[in-house]
Amino acid sequence: MNKSIFYHAGCPVCISAEQDIVNLIGTENVEIVNIGEIKSRIPEAENAGVKSVPALVTPNGNALHINFGASIDDVKA
Amino acid sequence: MNKSIFYHAGCPVCISAEQDIVNLIGTENVEIVNIGEIKSRIPEAENAGVKSVPALVTPNGNALHINFGASIDDVKA
Repeated sequence: MNKSIFYHAGCPVCISAEQDIVNLIGTENVEIVNIGEIKSRIPEAENAGVKSVPALVTPNGNALHINFGASIDDVKA
Repeated sequence: MNKSIFYHAGCPVCISAEQDIVNLIGTENVEIVNIGEIKSRIPEAENAGVKSVPALVTPNGNALHINFGASIDDVKA
């Protein structure tokens, strides 16, 4: 199985969700990307269908939005 | 690890998310509950903090809302 990618922006709800996801999926199966810090990866997230963070992009390419933390537009600002 | 519980209501986005979650976490680690069919379990979901479905309640009790499919109030109706 390819890795999932968990996109977040450092907000409290993101960190909480990140810990849950890592616990559930296993740290070796998910790449964590903070697009608040690494803004160069925002286009990649958008192309994957990420509309808000935190979001998990699965190995088969589905973007699962988890809770509603911050709009991706807020992260860009 | 205790099981997670995935609450859904049979909507297309729920089914899609269900397949992703089962693939990621493993079918043996998650109980799938269709609260559209088993309405007696809606109070349990609400007590766990589920505001919309699909949602995943983790073993440590966090409710992760995935996408936004249907309001739990719509399922009651």
